[in-house]
Order: sequence, then C-alpha cells, then structure tokens
Amino acid sequence: MQNFADMTCEEIAEQETEARRRYDALMKEGISINMARGKPSPEQLDLSDGMLGLTRERMGIRDETGFDCRNYGELRGIPECRRLFGEIMGLPEDQVIACGSSSLNLMYDYISQGMTHGFGGEAPWMLTPERKFIAVVPGYDRHFAIAQHFGFQLVSVPMTPDGPDMDAVEAIVRDPAVKGMFCVPKYSNPDGVTYSEETLRRLAAMKTAPDFRVIWDLAYVVHDLFETPDPFANVYEIAAPFGTEDRFMAFASTSKITYAGAGVAAMGGSVKNVEEVLSRLTLQIISYDKINQLRHAAVFSGIDDVRERMRRHAAILRPKFETVLRVLSEELEGAGIARWSAPRGGYFISLDVTAGSAKYVGELCKACGLTLTGVGATYPYGVDPSDSNIRIAPSCPSVEELERATRLLAVCVKLAACRALREKAAE
Amino acid sequence: MQNFADMTCEEIAEQETEARRRYDALMKEGISINMARGKPSPEQLDLSDGMLGLTRERMGIRDETGFDCRNYGELRGIPECRRLFGEIMGLPEDQVIACGSSSLNLMYDYISQGMTHGFGGEAPWMLTPERKFIAVVPGYDRHFAIAQHFGFQLVSVPMTPDGPDMDAVEAIVRDPAVKGMFCVPKYSNPDGVTYSEETLRRLAAMKTAPDFRVIWDLAYVVHDLFETPDPFANVYEIAAPFGTEDRFMAFASTSKITYAGAGVAAMGGSVKNVEEVLSRLTLQIISYDKINQLRHAAVFSGIDDVRERMRRHAAILRPKFETVLRVLSEELEGAGIARWSAPRGGYFISLDVTAGSAKYVGELCKACGLTLTGVGATYPYGVDPSDSNIRIAPSCPSVEELERATRLLAVCVKLAACRALREKAAE
Repeated sequence: MQNFADMTCEEIAEQETEARRRYDALMKEGISINMARGKPSPEQLDLSDGMLGLTRERMGIRDETGFDCRNYGELRGIPECRRLFGEIMGLPEDQVIACGSSSLNLMYDYISQGMTHGFGGEAPWMLTPERKFIAVVPGYDRHFAIAQHFGFQLVSVPMTPDGPDMDAVEAIVRDPAVKGMFCVPKYSNPDGVTYSEETLRRLAAMKTAPDFRVIWDLAYVVHDLFETPDPFANVYEIAAPFGTEDRFMAFASTSKITYAGAGVAAMGGSVKNVEEVLSRLTLQIISYDKINQLRHAAVFSGIDDVRERMRRHAAILRPKFETVLRVLSEELEGAGIARWSAPRGGYFISLDVTAGSAKYVGELCKACGLTLTGVGATYPYGVDPSDSNIRIAPSCPSVEELERATRLLAVCVKLAACRALREKAAE
Repeated sequence: MQNFADMTCEEIAEQETEARRRYDALMKEGISINMARGKPSPEQLDLSDGMLGLTRERMGIRDETGFDCRNYGELRGIPECRRLFGEIMGLPEDQVIACGSSSLNLMYDYISQGMTHGFGGEAPWMLTPERKFIAVVPGYDRHFAIAQHFGFQLVSVPMTPDGPDMDAVEAIVRDPAVKGMFCVPKYSNPDGVTYSEETLRRLAAMKTAPDFRVIWDLAYVVHDLFETPDPFANVYEIAAPFGTEDRFMAFASTSKITYAGAGVAAMGGSVKNVEEVLSRLTLQIISYDKINQLRHAAVFSGIDDVRERMRRHAAILRPKFETVLRVLSEELEGAGIARWSAPRGGYFISLDVTAGSAKYVGELCKACGLTLTGVGATYPYGVDPSDSNIRIAPSCPSVEELERATRLLAVCVKLAACRALREKAAE
C-alpha cells in the first residue's frame, strides 16, 4: 500500500475513517483471542501424550546403568538424558546436568548462587552494590525480572540482525560491576534473531570481569520452523581458543518439545562451571525427578528423534506464523508505519510500529478482545523508551483466529499511525 | 546381659575375646550391606508403580478447574494436589503451594531468599554477618549443610524426648542474629521424637527476631509405623493466639509416600508467608510439573488414601525396625554400653554408644562390609562432640540383612566399649 509518509492530510483522514469502520465491525464480532505468551497449542501437546502411556512394563524403572529411577540418587540426572541434552546443547554428556522441569528455575538459581556465593572464587555479587546486567532489547521479560529482583541495574543494548550490538556490549563490559547478560542466541525472544558466528566470537573474546556470566538460554535451539535452520555455531568451540568457556552457562528444556512446564530441563557448560554448580547442587537437592527423565529418554533415543518431533511441531506452527506474516504483509507492506520480523524458528514475531504508539495499539486491541503481550514487557522495567515494540505469540490460537487477530492488529496499527500523524501535523 | 560397668577386667577381656571371635567370623561371611540413608526399599516403591500406568485415557490431562496440565500456568499447583497437601500438612488448601519433586530444594530456596531478600520487610539475612541458626542435635546432616552453606554459625541444642531443649532454645533466640532453626517435628531424624504440644507452644510463644523462621520439615508427618501414631498438634493453631504464624514455614513431599525424589513436594504456612513466597516464586518459575501433580491426585483422592498407602509402607517397614530393635535388645540390653530409640514412625533408629567410640564402631563396621551413616553426620560440621551417636537406617536392607547387620553392629559396639574400658583402666 501507499506509504503513509507520502499521504496528504486528507488521504490520512480517509485511511483513519476506513480503519475506524473496520475496527467497529471487528468489535461487533466479539473477538476473544490471547496472543500474550509463547505457549504450545493443545495440538502440539497432543504429540507427546504417548509419554503418559509409559507403564513400568513398557519403560522399565532403571536407567542404562541399572539404577532404580524411583529412588534417591544420581544428582547429575540419568546418563541417557544427559547425553540427549548434550546433543541438543552441543556439549559432552559429562558437562550436562539433567534436572527438573524448568530451565527458568535453573537460571534463577544460577543468578541466586552468584549473589550469595559468587563464581570462580570471586566475591558474591551481592557485595557489589552497583552491580549491572546487560539487557538485550527487545528481550524476554522474565529474564529482565530475575536480574531486577536481584538488584541489578539493567543496561540496555539493542538487538541487530546478527545478535546484540557488540560495539555497545564490548564498551559496557569494561566496567567490572557488569556481571552478566541473558542471551537467547538462537531464534531470540522476541526478534527471532540467531546470533552470527562473529557475534559469538566477540562475546567469547571480549574483556570482562572474571565472574561475568552469559546466561546462554537455548530455549529454541531445535525449534526450527523450516527444513533449513538458521546456522548456529557452538559457543564452547568458539570460546576454547580464548580460554573463556567458563563465561557461558547454557540452559535448555523440553518444555516446547514435550509438555510445557512438565518436561525436563538441563544446564551445562565448562567442566569447571559444572563442577562448581554440582558442589552447590549437592546441598540443594538429593536428586531430580529421574522418572520423568526416563520417560523422555524412552521417547527420544537421540537428537534425530528430537528433530523428528520438532518437524511435527513445525508442521503445526508454520501455517500460524505464515498467516500472521501474510496478513501483516497484505495490510501494512509499504505503508512505512510498521516493520516486523520473519523468523525461521522460535515462538515469536516482533512488530515495530510508529514510535509512541505501541501502547495505544495494545489498548485498542485489548478493547476489541485481543490480548497481546503487555506492551513494554520486552524492555527492562516494562518501559519501551520508543513505545514501538509489540511481541506477537502465534503458537496458541488457531489459524482462523490468527487471521482475524492479525487483521485487527493491523487495523489498530493504522489507527495509531493516523493518530500519531494527526498529532504531528497539529504541532 | 551383665552391665559392663560391673565387670572385672578379666570379664571384660573375656567379652572382648568373644566379640573379636564373632567379628572375625562375620568378616569371613563377606557382608555387604548399606544402612547409610533413609531410602525406601524397592518393595515400597513397587506400591506406587500403578502411577506409571496413568495414560491420558485413564487420568485425563485437566485438573478439576479444567486447566490443561500439559501447558504452562497455575503457579500454585493444581487445586486437588494443594488440598491433598493441606490435609497432610494441616493447612487450608489456599495456604499451600504444590511444587516440584523435592522439599529439600524448597527449603534451600527459602533460606536462599532469606539471604538475598529477607522476610516480612526485614533486611536480607546476608547483611547480618554474625548470623546464626539453631541446630537440634542429633539432627539431619542436609539441614545443617544448607545453613552452613549460607554462612550461618550453627548453635547446637540437644534433643529431649519432647523435642528440642526449649530452655536452651528460648535463651538462644534472644539474640536477634539468630535467624531460624530446622525442625523435623514428627518422628525426628534420627531420634524419632515427636515434639510435644508444650514444645510447640513454647516455640510459638518465645520472643525472637521478627524474621526468625522455623523450617517445619514435615518429612515423616504421615509416616507412622503403628496404628496409633504419636500425637502431634497443629503448630498453626497453637501459634494463632500468639500471632506468630509467620514464624513457621512448613514443607512436605511424597518422596516416602510414592517415589523418592520423583514425587511431589509442597510448602505452606500463614497467608502472609505464602503471599511473600508467591511474590518471589513468580520470578523463579513459570509453573511446576502439574502432570506429576495430576498423577498424585489421581492416586490419592484425599488423606484417607494416603493413610492407606502408609499402612502398606508400615507393613514393610515395621518388621525391619522390629528386627533391629530385637537384635539390639538381645545383644546389648542391660550392658550399659548403648542406648537406642524405639521410634513409632519415621525412617531411623538412633543409637548412642560409649562416649568416644562411635567413630571406631563405624570403622569396624565398614571394614566388615556394613556401611552406616557417616558417624558424626548427625551433628553440625560432622563432628559429634561426644562421639557417641550412630544413625541406623533400616528401610532398605532386607530383614535377613538387618539381622546380620545389627548383630555385627552390636559386636562392634562391644568391641569399642571393651577398648574404651581398657584404655580407661590403663589411665
């Protein structure tokens, strides 16, 4: 469509009238759609219901070493599950710990241990009152919330198509009070960016405080939407020549492979980091739920089984992403009032609208029955300084719902753009 | 048998010769028995294998509110599971949070949150450098280890038949740097003591720092060995008139009801404490494994089902406890060189031998193939000042193994007593 910037005031008024008419019509339809969170759909969850049928006769109760998984023991998790996560995370199995159901909980714990006990023999982070964490923006609200909870000042760094703006990161980490950053390096939340090998190299090479930690959240590491995934390098191989493997602590889970919140989570990293974590873990828990680990190992004998499962997820998710992208394109292409990501994996589409109007778009949508991720949530303290980013989570609604929801969203983006242009003209 | 204190040197020498002869004979038998930890036996775990057969068709995937347990959500856990734990813990269901698989992990987290954020608006515990925790001795090594890990100085208080020595506790908690204590108030580890109502009343009534917390570990709250359990009062009812409900934070799990380390854990307490925990939990995790909660709710529709299951556990455990107690009695009754508990529930028998000889007993047993809980482990820093306490965990070995193991243990107790008497005579 025509670029709004080239329109006359009259043309913009026409656009606004038309958008308002459509908005009112959609309001009458009584929409009730939630696109707030990256939750798998029931159809995706159905893919894993076979796991519920794993009786003692079918699955056994012992891991490959013969250990009875119904009893205490094996703090690191069962070997077959560690090996599986090793393949997912790009680590040897003995550098992986298979845990409970939540990788977010593991990340929280890791930061918490930094606070009270520090890393690599350095002082506890709590003793650095001016401690800071880097926030790559837009990013994941729960990451920011953990860092804030532990009293870190969040220093924003913008996302680029290759990952975080590394010039900015390199400058910021010169301050030894900067203790870490959260990264979702493959199919980032919400932009869907996969960090380039050069970004990984610069993350590994840069000079930081010795206890600086990159929380390497591999939330979407096997969550490709297409047969050809984004190329993604192994950060541990890249870090080895720099001797900075301890900088990266990796986390993953099967929440979006099997059941959300009822899968298996794992963490891993350098030998030294895993030993450090284990020395604390032995005080924290006797052992994690090995029966659920056994279930997962029974379903996935290796990475190929996981990839096969992910293809089935993709077959459900791809039409949903394509619907949102098609409607956005039909409605907004060329209008110059919105940009959006076209991710090749992950759970989100990131939409940037006219500066100063994202919150208004969110309100318009909400009033019409469409719930989006809280606008601003993708920024520290819930405040998007340019008020332009909207996170779209297309996984849960049906294709039909997504068609309507995205039409509504596009109409709201136009309404907000018209208002912004009117206000600008009035200045 | 005759009291060793009344024996002549010659009689003691005869005892020692006889014990040595039996020890050598047992050595030749090639014993290999582990009585170190309170692990359920395979027969006990078998009682829960039906849980593995709960397919989607049999169990469903929704909780009683219709929520799909395969997806994220319901931070507090599913209502039917919270209600079940409410009955177990003596709390209303809305004052209970059903969590993952480990109550130890919840206790660790709770202390950790005290460290970084404090309780009830008080300063984080980490800002009290001289912070202290009360250790009821003998006690549970993992409790002590958590407090030590977080830099608490442990102040020992002896156990009495009614619970901790409350005169000592009341005196110690006058110091505002004393921030809490771990309690296993029913069938304590290792003594099997159930705290009296008067002890509960004094715990509730005493003057403490406002952020003093009793970690109320209900590890064995339904784990009775006999039809008539120890009477055990509800601490929240007792604390209410004193307005000190916030002092007690309760924890429990099904580790010794269903599967050890693969059950469901829960925490609960006053409305205020539960709200405080939830305000932090929302940052820590999206939701716990609700599928495993659903499994447990499917198996146990209420406390009566739990009690029925515990009767079946008791039917397996009771003959084991009775074997140990019978052999101890046959071998050592009246000898004046050992005292032991006769618990009515829980997982342990506590044995006190001649002062200064417990470690030696442990070494003698170990050399003969019997592994006991590390002697000293029941005391802070692993040091039993009188070197007299030995924890016996009879749950895992068979009755036949327990018969032999306890004979060996008794022989070692005699050998150690003879050595001690010889050394005393030589002084």
